[in-house]
Amino acid sequence: MSNKTTAIACSNIALIKYWGNFDARLRMPLNDSLSMNLDALTTQTTVEFEDALEQDVVVVNDAAADEKTWNRVREHLDRLRALAKISTHARVHSRNNFPSATGLASSASAFAALTLAGARAAGLALEERALSIVARQGSGSAARSIPSGFVEWLAATNVTSTSDQSYARQLMPPDAWDLRDVIAIVSRDAKKVGSSEGHALVNTSPFLGERISRLPTRYHRVRRELLNKNLKGMGTEIEAEAIELHLLAMTSRPPIFYWAPATVRVMDAVRQWREEGLQAYYTLDAGPNVHVLVEAKDADEVASRLRTFADVQDVIVSGAGGGARVNDAHLF
Amino acid sequence: MSNKTTAIACSNIALIKYWGNFDARLRMPLNDSLSMNLDALTTQTTVEFEDALEQDVVVVNDAAADEKTWNRVREHLDRLRALAKISTHARVHSRNNFPSATGLASSASAFAALTLAGARAAGLALEERALSIVARQGSGSAARSIPSGFVEWLAATNVTSTSDQSYARQLMPPDAWDLRDVIAIVSRDAKKVGSSEGHALVNTSPFLGERISRLPTRYHRVRRELLNKNLKGMGTEIEAEAIELHLLAMTSRPPIFYWAPATVRVMDAVRQWREEGLQAYYTLDAGPNVHVLVEAKDADEVASRLRTFADVQDVIVSGAGGGARVNDAHLF
Repeated sequence: MSNKTTAIACSNIALIKYWGNFDARLRMPLNDSLSMNLDALTTQTTVEFEDALEQDVVVVNDAAADEKTWNRVREHLDRLRALAKISTHARVHSRNNFPSATGLASSASAFAALTLAGARAAGLALEERALSIVARQGSGSAARSIPSGFVEWLAATNVTSTSDQSYARQLMPPDAWDLRDVIAIVSRDAKKVGSSEGHALVNTSPFLGERISRLPTRYHRVRRELLNKNLKGMGTEIEAEAIELHLLAMTSRPPIFYWAPATVRVMDAVRQWREEGLQAYYTLDAGPNVHVLVEAKDADEVASRLRTFADVQDVIVSGAGGGARVNDAHLF
Repeated sequence: MSNKTTAIACSNIALIKYWGNFDARLRMPLNDSLSMNLDALTTQTTVEFEDALEQDVVVVNDAAADEKTWNRVREHLDRLRALAKISTHARVHSRNNFPSATGLASSASAFAALTLAGARAAGLALEERALSIVARQGSGSAARSIPSGFVEWLAATNVTSTSDQSYARQLMPPDAWDLRDVIAIVSRDAKKVGSSEGHALVNTSPFLGERISRLPTRYHRVRRELLNKNLKGMGTEIEAEAIELHLLAMTSRPPIFYWAPATVRVMDAVRQWREEGLQAYYTLDAGPNVHVLVEAKDADEVASRLRTFADVQDVIVSGAGGGARVNDAHLF
């Protein structure tokens, strides 16, 4: 059986964050989130189910996956096998187009590409919504890397919600707005506390309830300004949202601190540049790197400025990216 | 009339923070706070009421006070003049024993010393509680620099509260516990947003209500461990408290950011040292400098380590200090 399939998917940066689960096992989030796919950060993954294999084989960036990664990939393949009603083991090769030592999250692009390639290889004809729901269970933010461009991921958090109600959908195609994410890589260290652990601790922050109750107001404002392509209109809310994610982390028990010294330096600089008239706004994932959102005309200027910082190790500029798609550049 | 009086008072570091007022004009705080006077950081102030003066004269660190400071001192002298039923203008000379460019708050020690010297010079015989109430109206945290040692400042926030119910009292004398505050000076810049402005913005943080409702639990735990002289028992709560003050600031509208890159670096280091067995815990005022609390036996080690940081500009080690007191070392 010739089922070898390769897919490519982008990472994404959230404007409204995913932090905390309604259902941790199914990765059903506590709140709706909004994101932009990043065309400069992609994962390419080839999957083939092979009768001869005695267990799944997982190779990431040309090296055998560590046990934790292998387990997580195997669990995800199990989801696809259950849907396809097969029990065959698979060979999975995956490669990021960005150095793994950037500290940039690759689980979104990785699980989106794995879901699409794995589903096709298993003979499943899943539509975008179904792919997003499966991807979500491998890594929450991977749900957002399935559709193209600017994306919203619906939370479906009332007590009667089911897993198939929490999926991502396109809000706006990538070419609708030439927004750029200028990413300041300030630390290449692996995070001390992974996102999954962070999500699990969010309920220990006394401020979670207040955040969740107020978030719809922010969500709808940012969504509206995004659709209006009004960076200035959404910028301040986006920054406050990023700070709030870190507030939840820093007030968890035990607290989680993701910021590096340079994180503070870059955030300060962006606010200063804005006072000088440059329309730039930062956001952060659960890590130390700073994503600076600008319109295309300002991207080179911001990238140049960030490169002058001694403690900024690299700068990556990304436009809005497409959705997960199949191609034929197999990795094995 | 020979009324010239000189007083000296210590600065203090709060373990439970003062952030936000129930009554801004009277500086009646939203919550009880706990602090330690710092014997290494003092202000000495001489006051004399002179019939010949046409207006108050204020000299700080050998230079005429700027208009903002002059106004604030004049208003404070007005409080004392009202109590003493006099209208005479005063000459005020004040000097800090630490460089004013450390970024360390001097308003607590300054208004405590001014209150005591000014009251005596005006012929008022105020007891400690009354001095604390007057000092509080000049600078909230100055209330805590009137009593000696480890101090609690009561908030008196119910609707029938009056100003004379919010005062500071000694919890424990300074020699009861040889706790040390090892202060890492990481920035000498003046704050962009002063504490008074920060207090005024606290109501714009969506997280204030949750903080205030939960703070009594933390307060009583820290107070109990302080009385037990158990640094380890109160350390984690003290760190969480410091972070919470900054989260209120960072989630105010507009947000206030006090951390410097080195603030993050020092906090990270302290947590790391603790993992290695060194009992050290940080706290921060509304500014970038980091106060590291240790028992006396660990003070030299922590100070030495902090001095190796390229972005730590100075290190000051302080024990617990006494209360505001009169002496005869007049400044003019």
